[in-house]
Amino acid sequence: MIRVGIIGYGYWGPHIVRNFHAADDCEVAAVCDKSPAAQKRIQRAYPDARVTGDASEVLCSPQIDAVAVITPVWTHFELAKAALENGKHVFVEKPFTSTAAQAEELIELAAKKRLTIMVDHTFLFTGAVKKIGQLIQDGTLGRLYYYDSTRVNLGLFQHDVNVIWDLAPHDLSIMDHLVQSKPEYLAATGQNHLNCHKDVAYITVYFSDNVIAHFNVNWLSPVKVRTTLLGGEKKMVVWNDLDADEKIKVYDKGVEIKSSQGVYDVLVSYRAGDMWAPKVEQTEALSAEIRYFIDCVAHEQTPFNDGVAGLRVVKLLEAADRSLAEMGAAVRL
Amino acid sequence: MIRVGIIGYGYWGPHIVRNFHAADDCEVAAVCDKSPAAQKRIQRAYPDARVTGDASEVLCSPQIDAVAVITPVWTHFELAKAALENGKHVFVEKPFTSTAAQAEELIELAAKKRLTIMVDHTFLFTGAVKKIGQLIQDGTLGRLYYYDSTRVNLGLFQHDVNVIWDLAPHDLSIMDHLVQSKPEYLAATGQNHLNCHKDVAYITVYFSDNVIAHFNVNWLSPVKVRTTLLGGEKKMVVWNDLDADEKIKVYDKGVEIKSSQGVYDVLVSYRAGDMWAPKVEQTEALSAEIRYFIDCVAHEQTPFNDGVAGLRVVKLLEAADRSLAEMGAAVRL
Amino acid sequence: MIRVGIIGYGYWGPHIVRNFHAADDCEVAAVCDKSPAAQKRIQRAYPDARVTGDASEVLCSPQIDAVAVITPVWTHFELAKAALENGKHVFVEKPFTSTAAQAEELIELAAKKRLTIMVDHTFLFTGAVKKIGQLIQDGTLGRLYYYDSTRVNLGLFQHDVNVIWDLAPHDLSIMDHLVQSKPEYLAATGQNHLNCHKDVAYITVYFSDNVIAHFNVNWLSPVKVRTTLLGGEKKMVVWNDLDADEKIKVYDKGVEIKSSQGVYDVLVSYRAGDMWAPKVEQTEALSAEIRYFIDCVAHEQTPFNDGVAGLRVVKLLEAADRSLAEMGAAVRL
Amino acid sequence: MIRVGIIGYGYWGPHIVRNFHAADDCEVAAVCDKSPAAQKRIQRAYPDARVTGDASEVLCSPQIDAVAVITPVWTHFELAKAALENGKHVFVEKPFTSTAAQAEELIELAAKKRLTIMVDHTFLFTGAVKKIGQLIQDGTLGRLYYYDSTRVNLGLFQHDVNVIWDLAPHDLSIMDHLVQSKPEYLAATGQNHLNCHKDVAYITVYFSDNVIAHFNVNWLSPVKVRTTLLGGEKKMVVWNDLDADEKIKVYDKGVEIKSSQGVYDVLVSYRAGDMWAPKVEQTEALSAEIRYFIDCVAHEQTPFNDGVAGLRVVKLLEAADRSLAEMGAAVRL
Repeated sequence: MIRVGIIGYGYWGPHIVRNFHAADDCEVAAVCDKSPAAQKRIQRAYPDARVTGDASEVLCSPQIDAVAVITPVWTHFELAKAALENGKHVFVEKPFTSTAAQAEELIELAAKKRLTIMVDHTFLFTGAVKKIGQLIQDGTLGRLYYYDSTRVNLGLFQHDVNVIWDLAPHDLSIMDHLVQSKPEYLAATGQNHLNCHKDVAYITVYFSDNVIAHFNVNWLSPVKVRTTLLGGEKKMVVWNDLDADEKIKVYDKGVEIKSSQGVYDVLVSYRAGDMWAPKVEQTEALSAEIRYFIDCVAHEQTPFNDGVAGLRVVKLLEAADRSLAEMGAAVRL
Repeated sequence: MIRVGIIGYGYWGPHIVRNFHAADDCEVAAVCDKSPAAQKRIQRAYPDARVTGDASEVLCSPQIDAVAVITPVWTHFELAKAALENGKHVFVEKPFTSTAAQAEELIELAAKKRLTIMVDHTFLFTGAVKKIGQLIQDGTLGRLYYYDSTRVNLGLFQHDVNVIWDLAPHDLSIMDHLVQSKPEYLAATGQNHLNCHKDVAYITVYFSDNVIAHFNVNWLSPVKVRTTLLGGEKKMVVWNDLDADEKIKVYDKGVEIKSSQGVYDVLVSYRAGDMWAPKVEQTEALSAEIRYFIDCVAHEQTPFNDGVAGLRVVKLLEAADRSLAEMGAAVRL
Repeated sequence: MIRVGIIGYGYWGPHIVRNFHAADDCEVAAVCDKSPAAQKRIQRAYPDARVTGDASEVLCSPQIDAVAVITPVWTHFELAKAALENGKHVFVEKPFTSTAAQAEELIELAAKKRLTIMVDHTFLFTGAVKKIGQLIQDGTLGRLYYYDSTRVNLGLFQHDVNVIWDLAPHDLSIMDHLVQSKPEYLAATGQNHLNCHKDVAYITVYFSDNVIAHFNVNWLSPVKVRTTLLGGEKKMVVWNDLDADEKIKVYDKGVEIKSSQGVYDVLVSYRAGDMWAPKVEQTEALSAEIRYFIDCVAHEQTPFNDGVAGLRVVKLLEAADRSLAEMGAAVRL
Repeated sequence: MIRVGIIGYGYWGPHIVRNFHAADDCEVAAVCDKSPAAQKRIQRAYPDARVTGDASEVLCSPQIDAVAVITPVWTHFELAKAALENGKHVFVEKPFTSTAAQAEELIELAAKKRLTIMVDHTFLFTGAVKKIGQLIQDGTLGRLYYYDSTRVNLGLFQHDVNVIWDLAPHDLSIMDHLVQSKPEYLAATGQNHLNCHKDVAYITVYFSDNVIAHFNVNWLSPVKVRTTLLGGEKKMVVWNDLDADEKIKVYDKGVEIKSSQGVYDVLVSYRAGDMWAPKVEQTEALSAEIRYFIDCVAHEQTPFNDGVAGLRVVKLLEAADRSLAEMGAAVRL
């Protein structure tokens, strides 16, 4: 039985609490939010829960084994550090921290204390990402050419971060998980229109082996788009996360250059065969992730979405900010 | 009556010949293609046409007033120059030339000879672009925030140019036509997978007034996408050129920052109202463009898609190549 | 303060209880379900609620003012009758009853006892139906030509009713609400494949004024479709209830016959103008309906979706069964 | 070498002439249309063709082996009869004739004269229908449950026929071709709004083996829909003819009733697996059909879309008219 304290009950917190509450071998020992309105909502939903406005009650309680930090990113480091120092495992909302240095300090601290850090990259637990991962692993796609994602919609404007820190962590963590090659350079462009934070931005990541990834994130789009294309030598994938029934489509399409003795002797062969939409697991990703967290803590296993994975994403975000400031100049990773 | 000679009867040439043939006050005096198979196709479709494999017959003929150059880009300069030197107006396929220097030389030559140059940016004559132009001109969109285009599909691989020179001229010319601000910097990233030419590429153009434009071009996509988003202060547009009936959708959506005394006092207001799909003119764009060419020649008017417009696009393409070579470093325009 | 007892906590019951629970001026006094598993789910979700497996506890309790009957259709009559006899207002799941005779008996009983009956035709409270109703009322559509609905998906097979009694009550109640003409005849066809109940069926309703309505209901469709077309003299509507953002599209399209002196002198004029997707209210329909029920009871008002409205739908369902049995022969309404 | 004369150069005639013109072993000997404007269009497109306004020139010419009758349905019988009497094979536009009696007379005449009749059911030669036919033939779909087609759009109003005779022949001929069971009864409903012809109509066909087919045809729809669902025991198909790339989708979905000892012991099992969009042949259907006509004539083979197939469709159309007149009463086939 693991006793969990959750800090932060804003937009995402209720989903975290609900899933810890529903999980076996787990008890929601306390929920904390500074806002009295949020405290009231917690109490109504979980009449038996201990509710507090003081994070230190959660961080210091001897009745708590693990702390979930579901607060704005600029608070992650202090809260997670205090939790680790008090001997508690931590489950941290993405992005892990505001800087790579903070992430490194937390990773080191956890290692010293033999505690688990899990960063909440929920998408890695969706049926769609698991299915694409399988198609890459089993060689269905063949050598990967590119990863091209679009995540745009209207708002919500954040006070403290730009659109990259808000929307791209999803896609960067998925890319980090799926693409086997090594990212080498990153270039980012973008613009702000309403306040000082970029609200439209584009990121390119150059990998070894000629793989390229691109991310289009936008807070000012009239339509919601959640689409990722993956081009492989043998097959190509379109993942439309807004399609209720056919999220993943695998295309038997491709191009092969048969010979190229001279510049005009190129013989190009095109292949356009069937399309196939594999059934994708429909269970709630967050439920699976929280189950995994509880199991990792219980069995002292290192999760694949640990602090080190979180750090890799933070490094990409930092690189994006540096490149943005130089209007797209490539930053070595 | 204007007598036109067309050089090049490959993929696009037949459409050009058909439209010149159907136009009033115009005669197709000769059609030229080096390939005997193409010559046979011309003859079959136009039994009365003069067919030749020798471009100089067209370029030198005193029976010809204007020459349409519908050949690969690397041949445009020599052919257009010869036509102008022989006193003929020219209609040139896009992109105008391989270099800005060539374009400047042709523009100067035409000015000296008082001849017309028109660059075939056909999309500027579509009902969709005309409608968007009208929505910008009449203030419906309000101040423009961004222009974001995606033009991806499978193939066709070109021997002599990369995906930017193949696909982006469409979108760059539309952007040049629609966006009223001044482009100041360009950054481009991309990768090649099958031969030495980039087959996946991304371009960002920075304008004055915080306008940003972005272009996603890809020869390796399993699906065909032709979508452009335009975000404005008052309205936003989604142009899906593959939608048979509702190409343009205008969204009454937006975000307004009401006040921002402090970083946490930002009051953001979102607006999400009706969507509206205006009826878009369905006539063939190329037919209108060729009509316009004949009229401009007849009345000695300078077309808006003249050599200077063509040069602006070539400069953007050259800048993209320079930025690509530096992995995305911004190039001043 | 109205005290409500809910009978039935299967698929739909939890939504009913949640909305009564959240409503002001209302108290969930008891919830009843025969299944011990359902009782456990109620208790967990509403720790303070009185839970019972015995409907008579709800029907006879002096602490209860109104009873919501959310059980299979064949039980509606007995439960609603007992509730009315005990002086309680009733909110009944659709379809109202198994036969028109039962509905008439309940209506009469309620009238005698001055009690309110509301039949849960939830769709009438959606933003989409309200918007279409407004477009008809204010003359935007002009004279109505047809109403054509498709409601198909895979399963769920019912034990006790055919696909018409399961799926068509939604659409028949919407048609009854929207179409101003008088339904005169009904013809229904269908077939069964897996057991003795029709799983695929089609209904045509003939109205005065040449209005025609058609319903396509199917439990064996691989895809889910929820689309209704309404053709009017001036405008036409496509309502796609599965479209998250643009449920209602209004087309400025039409046909006019200008003159028809002789069979070959018909001059037909077609109109194809803009399309317009009005913003549709997004609030939960059931919440608005339950608010309306509480208000009708409190202020002794007759709801528009009263027993008489429920009876009209039951009469259409009975007519459909009669026509089905005769392979489509029209039944006078 | 077969010499063909084509009568009728309205909407469809030009496609017929173009395909006979392009076919090997075939010569377009004459084209006839009463309209001088049509004659001019023929002459411009085929400068070498013999053009006439007098059908008897085609019907009687000894230089002609086969006659294509591409005129309104009420003229088919006289023209085809004259052609057969003059010893010519006939290719007749659909629907074959205005009455079954006429069709029977033509079939008899052709048999006596040993001449070929082909009815132009072009859809049977599309990649989509061929692929669906193959999926049925090879058992992929399993036992067929239903065939449900929707063919609606705005206009074109016909002077001489109702919407069933205009739009349904396509779908009835496809159903006739694909469904292996025997059609037994037909019921049709519909309504007219603008003149005396039904412009909205619905047809149900009852087959042996519990197969049911349904057709929704409408001249007053604001949107164009061309969708057919086929439900089978093992797989289900959605054919969207307007989808450029994925016309056919095969769903591994189904329902199985495991046991049903009593009415409440029904154990229903649902299956929802992958979706698969097979590549569909993209060649022009009419070109294949005309090739097939030439071959059937040359080798004295009976085409599968012969007069008898055309007669089956005419019988369904006649039954639809009879049922329409009785507001949906089933007509025995």
